[in-house]
Amino acid sequence: MPEPRWLAPHEAEIWSTYRRLSRELQRAQDQQLQRDSGISAADYALLAPLSESEGGVLRARDLGAEVGWERSRLSHQISRMEKRGLVAREACEDDARGAMVRLTEKGRETIEAAAPGHAETVRRLFFDPLNPDEVGTLGMFLKRIMAAVEGRGESPAP
Amino acid sequence: MPEPRWLAPHEAEIWSTYRRLSRELQRAQDQQLQRDSGISAADYALLAPLSESEGGVLRARDLGAEVGWERSRLSHQISRMEKRGLVAREACEDDARGAMVRLTEKGRETIEAAAPGHAETVRRLFFDPLNPDEVGTLGMFLKRIMAAVEGRGESPAP
Repeated sequence: MPEPRWLAPHEAEIWSTYRRLSRELQRAQDQQLQRDSGISAADYALLAPLSESEGGVLRARDLGAEVGWERSRLSHQISRMEKRGLVAREACEDDARGAMVRLTEKGRETIEAAAPGHAETVRRLFFDPLNPDEVGTLGMFLKRIMAAVEGRGESPAP
Repeated sequence: MPEPRWLAPHEAEIWSTYRRLSRELQRAQDQQLQRDSGISAADYALLAPLSESEGGVLRARDLGAEVGWERSRLSHQISRMEKRGLVAREACEDDARGAMVRLTEKGRETIEAAAPGHAETVRRLFFDPLNPDEVGTLGMFLKRIMAAVEGRGESPAP
């Protein structure tokens, strides 16, 4: 096994900032959604792909893949949203084992009312601090890191 | 209220990459820690600041602030780790209401065994895809976004 390489001090600082940012950005979105729309970030995460899907309906497994959640987390969240009338579970026509999740009329009204404030928050916190060139550079960095995480890493520019 | 500004398509793509990266990077760290050290990322998150503190002991509230968790999440996680002998709860000498959390000998051995593999994973996935200049640039971007999230935003370079 090769010698482990520790993080250099400036890397440890950047890594710490990244982790703190992930957490605080999530918290800021949650607070904005709760305050302005009475929904959680988890509600929003499921409502958004449903509202963009054809007919407002997705297989539960596709919805789970979209948000990257384990099955039990997804199932609990759908149950909570079903009780509040935001989504409805349906049997899948082609597959007895597959459940479908459908956006209700109330669910659609909720996401449509919440979306502008959410977009405004993301813009203000994540994009406005950077100029357009910097936004492009950040996007390139994130893509390269994502490729490494997915095991298809490329070498950095020399 | 000003007109909401939607995300431009390239921004929506970057935002989606960022969210996916947050999730997948967390998952990759969790898998590596579970596989190589038999601990979770949540275990690691608490063991690391304890191991760096003087005497291996911290007030529970300071530990919670360090990781940014709600009190109930912190308390459950400490209970699980206490059962496995990684940490011990103690009363606080100066403050009857304050609980202290102490790293046990087993906890210290666990974090010391886990740290090199964890650092190696962070390095390989997060830093190796970028060259040294790019790492510095990413650090600057993250700091500026963090400042906006903390409500002390600065303007981007023109």
